[in-house]
Amino acid sequence: MKFLREAVYHRPVDNWCYGYDGGTVHVRLRTKRNDPLTIDIVFGDKCRPWAEMTAKTMSLLSSDEYFDYWQAELTPAYGRLAYGFLLKEGNEEIWFTEQGLHQLPPTEHLGLFELPYLHPSDTHQPPAWVKEAVFYQIFPERFANGDPGNDPENVLEWGGAPEYFNFFGGDLKGVLEKLDHLSQLGVSAIYFTPLFEAPSNHKYDTADYFRIDPHFGTTEDLRKLVDACHERGIRVLLDGVFNHSGITFPPFQDVVAKGKESRYFDWFHIKEWPLEVKDGIPTYKTFAFEHTMPKLNTSNPEVRNYFVRLGRYWIQETGIDGWRLDVANETDLELWREFRKGVKEIKPDAYILGEVWHDGMKWLRGDQFDGVMNYPVSRAILDFFVFGHLDAHIFSSRIGHYLARYPQQANEACFNHLDTHDTVRLLTLCKGDKGKMKQAILFQFMYVGAPSIYYGDEIGLAGDFDPDNRRCMIWESHKQDRELYDFYRALIRLRRQYKALTSGSLTFRVAEPGSSVIAFERCLYKEVLLIVMNAGEEAARTSVPAASGVWIDLLTEEQHVVSGGTLTEELRPRQFRVWAPLDQT
Amino acid sequence: MKFLREAVYHRPVDNWCYGYDGGTVHVRLRTKRNDPLTIDIVFGDKCRPWAEMTAKTMSLLSSDEYFDYWQAELTPAYGRLAYGFLLKEGNEEIWFTEQGLHQLPPTEHLGLFELPYLHPSDTHQPPAWVKEAVFYQIFPERFANGDPGNDPENVLEWGGAPEYFNFFGGDLKGVLEKLDHLSQLGVSAIYFTPLFEAPSNHKYDTADYFRIDPHFGTTEDLRKLVDACHERGIRVLLDGVFNHSGITFPPFQDVVAKGKESRYFDWFHIKEWPLEVKDGIPTYKTFAFEHTMPKLNTSNPEVRNYFVRLGRYWIQETGIDGWRLDVANETDLELWREFRKGVKEIKPDAYILGEVWHDGMKWLRGDQFDGVMNYPVSRAILDFFVFGHLDAHIFSSRIGHYLARYPQQANEACFNHLDTHDTVRLLTLCKGDKGKMKQAILFQFMYVGAPSIYYGDEIGLAGDFDPDNRRCMIWESHKQDRELYDFYRALIRLRRQYKALTSGSLTFRVAEPGSSVIAFERCLYKEVLLIVMNAGEEAARTSVPAASGVWIDLLTEEQHVVSGGTLTEELRPRQFRVWAPLDQT
Repeated sequence: MKFLREAVYHRPVDNWCYGYDGGTVHVRLRTKRNDPLTIDIVFGDKCRPWAEMTAKTMSLLSSDEYFDYWQAELTPAYGRLAYGFLLKEGNEEIWFTEQGLHQLPPTEHLGLFELPYLHPSDTHQPPAWVKEAVFYQIFPERFANGDPGNDPENVLEWGGAPEYFNFFGGDLKGVLEKLDHLSQLGVSAIYFTPLFEAPSNHKYDTADYFRIDPHFGTTEDLRKLVDACHERGIRVLLDGVFNHSGITFPPFQDVVAKGKESRYFDWFHIKEWPLEVKDGIPTYKTFAFEHTMPKLNTSNPEVRNYFVRLGRYWIQETGIDGWRLDVANETDLELWREFRKGVKEIKPDAYILGEVWHDGMKWLRGDQFDGVMNYPVSRAILDFFVFGHLDAHIFSSRIGHYLARYPQQANEACFNHLDTHDTVRLLTLCKGDKGKMKQAILFQFMYVGAPSIYYGDEIGLAGDFDPDNRRCMIWESHKQDRELYDFYRALIRLRRQYKALTSGSLTFRVAEPGSSVIAFERCLYKEVLLIVMNAGEEAARTSVPAASGVWIDLLTEEQHVVSGGTLTEELRPRQFRVWAPLDQT
Repeated sequence: MKFLREAVYHRPVDNWCYGYDGGTVHVRLRTKRNDPLTIDIVFGDKCRPWAEMTAKTMSLLSSDEYFDYWQAELTPAYGRLAYGFLLKEGNEEIWFTEQGLHQLPPTEHLGLFELPYLHPSDTHQPPAWVKEAVFYQIFPERFANGDPGNDPENVLEWGGAPEYFNFFGGDLKGVLEKLDHLSQLGVSAIYFTPLFEAPSNHKYDTADYFRIDPHFGTTEDLRKLVDACHERGIRVLLDGVFNHSGITFPPFQDVVAKGKESRYFDWFHIKEWPLEVKDGIPTYKTFAFEHTMPKLNTSNPEVRNYFVRLGRYWIQETGIDGWRLDVANETDLELWREFRKGVKEIKPDAYILGEVWHDGMKWLRGDQFDGVMNYPVSRAILDFFVFGHLDAHIFSSRIGHYLARYPQQANEACFNHLDTHDTVRLLTLCKGDKGKMKQAILFQFMYVGAPSIYYGDEIGLAGDFDPDNRRCMIWESHKQDRELYDFYRALIRLRRQYKALTSGSLTFRVAEPGSSVIAFERCLYKEVLLIVMNAGEEAARTSVPAASGVWIDLLTEEQHVVSGGTLTEELRPRQFRVWAPLDQT
């Protein structure tokens, strides 16, 4: 057999073997890309006779540059699973088990891989609503000023140039007044950057975690806003900044005042006394080397309890639906385990979303986050559709890699943004090229996981690096890009209408080296959508395997008759199609 | 560059990137075995300028059949680590980062791998004493009968043939009286199979978790025994059977009596009512399909709390030093997280040992077990030294695989047995061939992790499958194999004397295909031991790289002068050497 031994990988942890729901197990195996293998998973209960072992052929889940990823879905009868893989090439076969690759078939369960017991309580089960959600991210100081009475001193006129330390008076009442905008757009969840009292305009330097910033409003205002959102079917996520506080946080001020005598001394990481900044490095640990953001000692149970209590408090007081957790990969894991337990106890379907810019597997094992901010996928989308750094083959390989890297339900519960308050805005990344922008957005909405719109993107708000990416929202209709707004609306409608987009498989059909054309299918049972995109600046003739019959482009309502099993057409530069069989619509 | 791309593996989790102690990080990379690569890890703080990134050449940790495993030890200055790998072959180089393999050097931290923050509280830190311990496993019903007054009815004469349901009267007083035997042998810890009240002779079908089985003695007896052990520097581990109870466990009996009305109904997994066995399958979940062992519902917080309380109770009441956890991979993970917290809170250096027969990584992340029973290593040792199924090359590959599969501290805290109450005894596996037996034992004691002796092995007790492997201990000196006993004593002395055996690296120097000879080094700073073993039945001339000078065999005190950097000698069949430089001893 010629398949590449060294490419074969499996380990019964994480994305390789996991409970998908209470009763189903997904098992994955990696082999070299295009090695001509058929793979059976041979499985059974380790306490039943060997003869009762069953074989099932695995399906190709996705591929990346070097590897194919295979998946099988199993439902162990007694919760226990012993399994091995049988790799077949022509008439030859070889086994892959915990003992490695071997010719001789196993004769006992002991040498196999094992999922010792499937516990629903150990299974990563994000809230069901998340995968169907469309998020809208609001930076409250810049969204809408509903109450000039609570404006900061020195508030500037709405629409001025954002700077690191200026204020424009946005507040919760402003958001409440603008909910029609969100409802019409069709989003189903808001993620607010921090609302709690803090000196800055971004509020990531918290002074008081238990108080809404008075320039934004009151707890009562938030409660009203959450109620109003819920009436419209919109859920609300707050931003939890528990990695660090601001320097005006009273416990830190207590340490400043009392040093080691402070009862909060162990709430922080004081490396040296006195507290100062030497050559740019504070004598206490901070976020990055930012002296205004002292790092909290979340290994201290008192601190953990404080934030678990906080997480529950705001749910209980205002009915919010979850938390986005800032710098969530730099605190200790135990904080998130306890936070999850505390929050889910009072709101089982609360969404817990971690800010992780890298591989987030460690936090997606079921004990911590429901999903992470999907920076890697965002980067791949921008690299292909916006920057043109990748060809279709490499783009599909990157996406294939990410599909295989997390459990399916974790992918489905990821937060898929293209820009945020921490990045350049999408329109600006596209240098104002709406054709590029729409390509990126289309893929975002056709992909697995919950898309998020950064406030203003939908009406053509531009913005470079922080602070420019935090401009005031434009409310004058004639200054808004309503065509872009309608495009977002149409995509949101599609996501609502087609479960294949939220729960289905994703399979690339076309993605050739050197090309800018991709075609991929989203499928769920009999429902299928076929998305064809020309990301390039030249027209391209495309041929995509598709069932014969009449197909309709769900965005333009154009129809196309497919015969001979191939959908062939000429795509204009930057043109895209969302095809569905007519009889399915 | 010709190296095999598909063989390259790293993911910043588990054994691939972990905190070793509070401040050190180990990073590992996998490449194809013998690919002619030099590998630098390029690393730095993600919040410091790119120019401050540092390079360090990685060392070869171990190899298995297909792969080399490289390791670097880093001490991040600010707790954060961004890193990539630079693979060099001749004058060519290629990068491996979170973006995959690429020619262009990274220019920013974002595309690198990341250890976002090193938290000592997230670091797997087993008790320091474990790696230096030698365990002795006692099956109390068969070790020594110190108090005939507490014997079961129908007790049989000591030394009779063990059967599934017979009794010989072993008890705690018996153990107390025989502590001299253990002290003279030199062991430093006892692992007792279950002591709590249960109908069977093995006590894995617990009736009362809070009571010592009256046939074994009382809580007071255990307390006395633990005190006596501690005076001799011997620690004590109890067996916690929390996956399932016995049917006489009162909560189960309550369910039997009251059905759904029982307040303990949710303590178990009742699939159907009434409780019965249909075609060999109970209508309630059990251990395997054993109807006398109903599976406990450890996802129920009440049940978890019960066992956390139990874990603390026996430590508080009797001073025991830890828990061996039965069928530890079949309960939910949350049980062990809470158990660990509860136990470590009152005894930070308690040892928590899980029974896992397969890859145990999932439980060795720092939140659950300190170590696992090392069945995979045990199996490799038996396969090579006892069954002769492997050649030296494959054996060293298997061992190399296991060294790389867990973090170093997890390997060091593993429980390395060659037999237990669940397996055929070592002497019997060896068909009485003591030459074979000693080879296996020597490797066990020279390997990484705490060796364990199953009671009686040290004096030549034989025994086939359960129940024969649970024979009565032989106390008549003339019936004991004192030569074997002295061999164990000598090995235990070596482990006490040489830190290289407990904390050092392990590197194979000789392990050729088709051969039965292995040579490997254990090294710690300047201390080095060179173990040379001929596992075959024919004499073998061996040449091992070794520093020139006089070496001494620590077991025989024979000396050998090495010149020219090679230790060459003729080994008799089954002969072994534990060489050390004379000036080191």
